Amino acid sequence: MDRLLLELRAAVGDAVVTDLDRMLAYRRDQCLLARDGEPLAVVRARTVDDVVATLTIANRSRVPVVTRGAGTGLAGGANALDGCIVLALDRMNTILGIDTESRTATVEPGVINGDLAAAAAEHGLWYVPDPGSRAISSIGGNLATNAGGTCCAKYGVTADHVSRIKAVLADGRIVHTGSDTRKNVAGLNLTQLLVGSEGTLAVIVEATVRLRSLPASASTVVAMFPDAARAIDAVLAIRQVADPCLLEFMDRTTVSAVENMTRMGLDVGAGALLLVQCDGRDAGVEAAQCADACRRAGATEIYRTTDPREGDEFMQARRVALTALERQGSTLLDDLAVPVPQLPRMLSEIDRVAALHDVRIGTFGHAADGNLHPTVVFDAADPAAVARARAAFDDLVAACLSLGGSISGEHGIGSLKVGHLEDMIGTTQRELMAGIKAVFDPRGILNPGRGY
Amino acid sequence: MDRLLLELRAAVGDAVVTDLDRMLAYRRDQCLLARDGEPLAVVRARTVDDVVATLTIANRSRVPVVTRGAGTGLAGGANALDGCIVLALDRMNTILGIDTESRTATVEPGVINGDLAAAAAEHGLWYVPDPGSRAISSIGGNLATNAGGTCCAKYGVTADHVSRIKAVLADGRIVHTGSDTRKNVAGLNLTQLLVGSEGTLAVIVEATVRLRSLPASASTVVAMFPDAARAIDAVLAIRQVADPCLLEFMDRTTVSAVENMTRMGLDVGAGALLLVQCDGRDAGVEAAQCADACRRAGATEIYRTTDPREGDEFMQARRVALTALERQGSTLLDDLAVPVPQLPRMLSEIDRVAALHDVRIGTFGHAADGNLHPTVVFDAADPAAVARARAAFDDLVAACLSLGGSISGEHGIGSLKVGHLEDMIGTTQRELMAGIKAVFDPRGILNPGRGY
Repeated sequence: MDRLLLELRAAVGDAVVTDLDRMLAYRRDQCLLARDGEPLAVVRARTVDDVVATLTIANRSRVPVVTRGAGTGLAGGANALDGCIVLALDRMNTILGIDTESRTATVEPGVINGDLAAAAAEHGLWYVPDPGSRAISSIGGNLATNAGGTCCAKYGVTADHVSRIKAVLADGRIVHTGSDTRKNVAGLNLTQLLVGSEGTLAVIVEATVRLRSLPASASTVVAMFPDAARAIDAVLAIRQVADPCLLEFMDRTTVSAVENMTRMGLDVGAGALLLVQCDGRDAGVEAAQCADACRRAGATEIYRTTDPREGDEFMQARRVALTALERQGSTLLDDLAVPVPQLPRMLSEIDRVAALHDVRIGTFGHAADGNLHPTVVFDAADPAAVARARAAFDDLVAACLSLGGSISGEHGIGSLKVGHLEDMIGTTQRELMAGIKAVFDPRGILNPGRGY
Repeated sequence: MDRLLLELRAAVGDAVVTDLDRMLAYRRDQCLLARDGEPLAVVRARTVDDVVATLTIANRSRVPVVTRGAGTGLAGGANALDGCIVLALDRMNTILGIDTESRTATVEPGVINGDLAAAAAEHGLWYVPDPGSRAISSIGGNLATNAGGTCCAKYGVTADHVSRIKAVLADGRIVHTGSDTRKNVAGLNLTQLLVGSEGTLAVIVEATVRLRSLPASASTVVAMFPDAARAIDAVLAIRQVADPCLLEFMDRTTVSAVENMTRMGLDVGAGALLLVQCDGRDAGVEAAQCADACRRAGATEIYRTTDPREGDEFMQARRVALTALERQGSTLLDDLAVPVPQLPRMLSEIDRVAALHDVRIGTFGHAADGNLHPTVVFDAADPAAVARARAAFDDLVAACLSLGGSISGEHGIGSLKVGHLEDMIGTTQRELMAGIKAVFDPRGILNPGRGY
């Protein structure tokens, strides 16, 4: 392996890190229970040439490469493997251009989502995808996991906003996919194949994403319900009358954790909270209709505002949900999606699983697209509690599948859920995916064992 | 080959057609200049079992299979190959279910787009993708080509509305891709790989598509411009202030062909026409802003209406564009997409090519996403005219590429543009596509030579 390090140093110079202490920061993403290994080296690539050189050398020696954006992943997909090269793209963080006429931005993969959004906003434009991690996660990672966010039900996920990708294949060849045009049906859709491939097919080194006009400021509705079932009734009713840009759910446990942390005055006696925002030309009227739907579904308290600052404060309550739960213990965050009409049953299943394994689960998520984040709160110092947390996690995944759901709505499979994937997609799909991987990466060096 | 027919007959009975006259109707799509061959047999499948049996037999004997929906394709992708089996899915045309709570429809591939839209509308729901062929084209064909339509810029293309696909692989295995959930990042996105694959990877036998609430009726603006450049100025200005659900362009040649046919009173002296529709809660105000943008860009005549019937009449003028041009000769319809800011240059290129080859070209298309259909009108009985038409067609494709465009926005590559594809996507992408094809279809029986 010494020869490999020499080759790497000759090719990319001091971009190579081998110091164990310095490598520590590049070993893990933010998934607590996924294993990590000890990397041979970290390459902090500065250029496409660095990426090409690293992959060429790794491929020749059949050394695994784990590509890493900002390390904010939640499924262990960027955790180091023993003896791997961690290819870190955090230094490739230049916004290469914003084209106000075409309404696109071209970026390096390490650009932070929020930085792109801010740069676009200076031109009156909007980079839509808004994962909860947007202040700290990178576009490359967002693409690799096909990150979601709060505005997906109305505006789509990361995949829906990308038009072109430049990527480096395992053997160092560069491939350009997609087109600058809104519509393009020339050949197979390799762009959509790369999005969500979790570092297993190629390394994305540049992307062109679509921008929209900034929306008019949103109208916000917050509604408290005596129980989760009535909150979901309201979700179903809202979908009949409106197309909110945000429709978020928090259960009793989450509401009380958030209130404990923020002291913002949420009713900790409530069984569930819905946060609704409508944007567009007639946001106020649309929000009023959403409020009516909440009232008819049995909301006990409804607050409506068109003040963007107040709206942001409520949004902040939702954004800190995970942080608030983390204050109560270690957390194992799940990411399950069910068809919206199955939400009541999924919430009942979560209650059942919590009781069965005697664990505490706080649930919040994107109600409009059925994407919930049941979060097991446990004591990581107690092995029995860890075992119960894991068992609960597995049962939640199984319950989701039994309701026709997806085992990942927006975080990805990573290493955390590889064992569950075949239960969802079956053998034939998995074989096809393995075949596609072999086409892109015949030696299997790119994030092996992750994603599928 | 007699053995093969015996096997087919034993497996699928009278679904097999070998009579030359009866096969004639299954030999070609609607692309005039693409070649067709003489099929060995047509199988008019009634069930998934028929498809499985046909593919299993064909794969064993390495006989090519050309899958066919309604035969309305415009790129020769469904034209028979010599000695192939044409697998016709027109009889698999059952709407299997409309789920009003999940807001999805599950259909067989032969269901006509317009029939699905009508069935959804009975429940107050909307199947959005609206290719010009919607009254006669099938969902399977729409998926195979990733068909566009007039409302793409606001609502996306066929690919954006599909959630699940059931398909039969070349060896007869059945694969289910996607999920019933709005968000799903479990494994590689095989659904988006199948969409637009033009019958080369698998045979789609069932699809679940997403439905929306029916929009409020649209407000319509029709504007006449002295020249195409000013019409495109208006398009760029409209995109700054509004998000129309329809923004269609017709050039002078097309306007006058339509007026000749319809006598609806269009100004044949105008250089270009824009047809704009806005839907949603504030459609009237949005349409007024579009009209203002047209006026400022130099429109000579602007007509605005909120009457849906009047709107439909104008829409009809756009819908008959190709038919109107066909009355003036044989047509070679192109399908080019450029970034919207490049539209003026693309229109200049079309004029240049028309002059260079002494051909008549009528251009219409979806201005909001830069997708134009320059249509060469020629005398098919005159070999010199045919040669000039083809030369013009090739030059248009080259001009589009030089402007950073895509050689197909919504019709597909089929057989018509296979020779142009590598100029656009390069060798590496093409090799990856060929590799993926070999994973799905190792013996290369599915529509060989088409698509990529």
